[in-house]
Amino acid sequence: MKNLSLVFRSLALPVLLLTLNAAGAQEKQPLRYVDAATLTVIGKSMPTPKLFQRVDTARYELWQPVKNYSAFSTGLAVVFRTDSRTIRARWKTGGYGLGHNMTAIARKGLDLYIERDGQWAYAGFGWPKGDNHDSALVEYMDEGEKTCLVYLPLWDEVLSLELGIDGDSRIEAVPNPFRHRIVVLGSSITHGASAGRPGMTWTARLARRMGLDFLNLGYSGQCKLQPEFARMLAEMDADAFVFDAFSNPSAGEIEERLDAFVATVRKAHPSTPLIFIQTEVRETVNFNLRARKFESDKRAAAEAGVRRLMKDDRNIYFIDSRGMIGTDHLGTVDGSHPSDQGFMYMTRHLEPQLRKIFRKYGIR
Amino acid sequence: MKNLSLVFRSLALPVLLLTLNAAGAQEKQPLRYVDAATLTVIGKSMPTPKLFQRVDTARYELWQPVKNYSAFSTGLAVVFRTDSRTIRARWKTGGYGLGHNMTAIARKGLDLYIERDGQWAYAGFGWPKGDNHDSALVEYMDEGEKTCLVYLPLWDEVLSLELGIDGDSRIEAVPNPFRHRIVVLGSSITHGASAGRPGMTWTARLARRMGLDFLNLGYSGQCKLQPEFARMLAEMDADAFVFDAFSNPSAGEIEERLDAFVATVRKAHPSTPLIFIQTEVRETVNFNLRARKFESDKRAAAEAGVRRLMKDDRNIYFIDSRGMIGTDHLGTVDGSHPSDQGFMYMTRHLEPQLRKIFRKYGIR
Repeated sequence: MKNLSLVFRSLALPVLLLTLNAAGAQEKQPLRYVDAATLTVIGKSMPTPKLFQRVDTARYELWQPVKNYSAFSTGLAVVFRTDSRTIRARWKTGGYGLGHNMTAIARKGLDLYIERDGQWAYAGFGWPKGDNHDSALVEYMDEGEKTCLVYLPLWDEVLSLELGIDGDSRIEAVPNPFRHRIVVLGSSITHGASAGRPGMTWTARLARRMGLDFLNLGYSGQCKLQPEFARMLAEMDADAFVFDAFSNPSAGEIEERLDAFVATVRKAHPSTPLIFIQTEVRETVNFNLRARKFESDKRAAAEAGVRRLMKDDRNIYFIDSRGMIGTDHLGTVDGSHPSDQGFMYMTRHLEPQLRKIFRKYGIR
Repeated sequence: MKNLSLVFRSLALPVLLLTLNAAGAQEKQPLRYVDAATLTVIGKSMPTPKLFQRVDTARYELWQPVKNYSAFSTGLAVVFRTDSRTIRARWKTGGYGLGHNMTAIARKGLDLYIERDGQWAYAGFGWPKGDNHDSALVEYMDEGEKTCLVYLPLWDEVLSLELGIDGDSRIEAVPNPFRHRIVVLGSSITHGASAGRPGMTWTARLARRMGLDFLNLGYSGQCKLQPEFARMLAEMDADAFVFDAFSNPSAGEIEERLDAFVATVRKAHPSTPLIFIQTEVRETVNFNLRARKFESDKRAAAEAGVRRLMKDDRNIYFIDSRGMIGTDHLGTVDGSHPSDQGFMYMTRHLEPQLRKIFRKYGIR
């Protein structure tokens, strides 16, 4: 049977090739795999002992789950050029659970964009299976060199990542395609719940649209103006800081902590713009009066606190959130976390306001 | 310690109640649970032996997974009026797997809307845990009667469903709030991959926006103009049929099957509008030349087939899909399946065209 099968395959191959060529696609050939660590890894706010992590967890006194989240590959991406017509990936993730309000693709999958006519166009995703993944991202592409951007998982560690290309093709690192350094500290909304895939967070969308390097420090449920976050930002190199810092704390925590938090960052960065985004008006408040009061108190404390600081510091900004996740009440998955629809509304809301502020600082 | 804890609680309670009342919310009280089968179940295209199913699986010769999918609660919802300030649910699902491109909320969760100012506003979701669920949908609402709409899971059977309300409150069935019967046969796109929650499919969105009863017969990967689907539709009572019937078959299957499929439906429904939606232009074709050709051939066969039938039948319609899932290439989770962003674009595209057609038949 084995011999017969070989005969059949040697007969069938020319016919198959003819069909594929008619469709403009190529025959499959053996792949070779390269360690993604040899390419360019972007989205990192600091060097880390392990490459695919956001924050050096040994450097700061972090609590759980912030310590775990710091080791996640949230916001990280690999950029490279290749003339391969196939891009596959093998990657391992750290076994973090899946949760109820996100897809597995967003949590543990990959997300590929390719530069086309000066824009980043979606090209394919890496299909997650358990924590040991092996998936095509895109196949049957045309000839020619392409610049590729692969976003890493939003909600897990990446222990290893290899990219598979056609055996006879080239792959090489390229410089970071995004300019400046916009550090974003935030809640789960920034962390990417409930984006459909890793490149659909609001920071990744704006990076592609604006060509700017947004560095994602979203910490689901944990971003409450704590001193350790301020110390972390104080040590970072940044052209601007953007804060989604009023989604997790209570009104009382905002009142207690905001001034000290800003003072710590300001001491290290005397004139860097600090841009505070008001927390979204959640859909959880539509009927729940208790949530409505909690959120309304929080927004009032946030706006009062930032506007007070703005009186003495012309490099502090406040972005209002009315309409930020749309006006149709359909922008979240669970009342709190923007879906891709919500993130689309959010980027429409934020982009013009950020552009206006950034322009003053030569960030463009 | 237990006694001390009791003392503490009895002291703490009045303070807590005071706080809650100040926020306009009420104390918690014991709940009572009612079987959702005693309320109004909408979205069913036919009576079924088990209430929370779409199709009587014994009546048709169905193949797998169509048989399983027929027993799913996709598109079904429970409507009722209540003056309860809390709505909880206990429900059991059938153990169907979770997949990679959808949230657990969409697959196994619940999704509550409440009528407000003549519109359906999102009120809360039922948090899925395994297959034996117990979750608040909304709490701390104000007083007064409300009309509620709870969508059931998109991707599993519902074996039982009970709604929990405040012990001293009323709950009662109400008539179906949606008019007419629009039967939609379709692919995974209609089935609801990759909606963020059960009420975010394009059919559920249009039902709430237009006030019309869209009956969801989305069959992921299985909607290929098979004769058995035509026989099923022939037996149904419908004011219009809408087809997302070109997403799953190949160009060849469309050419082979379309005429016979339409003939079977037409024999039973001589002048009912048959509205064919062209399949979306997938994002999988951005760089994959083979997928591009397959999809392009399919769209050509679909358009040619329907336009040929339209020459002899003025009650057949074709809706073009250019721009249907947006023009930003960000409308899908995985290249094929609309995210909530894609479904938002899709409803914007379809609503005016469907309204125009429906108007001719008094469907409004």
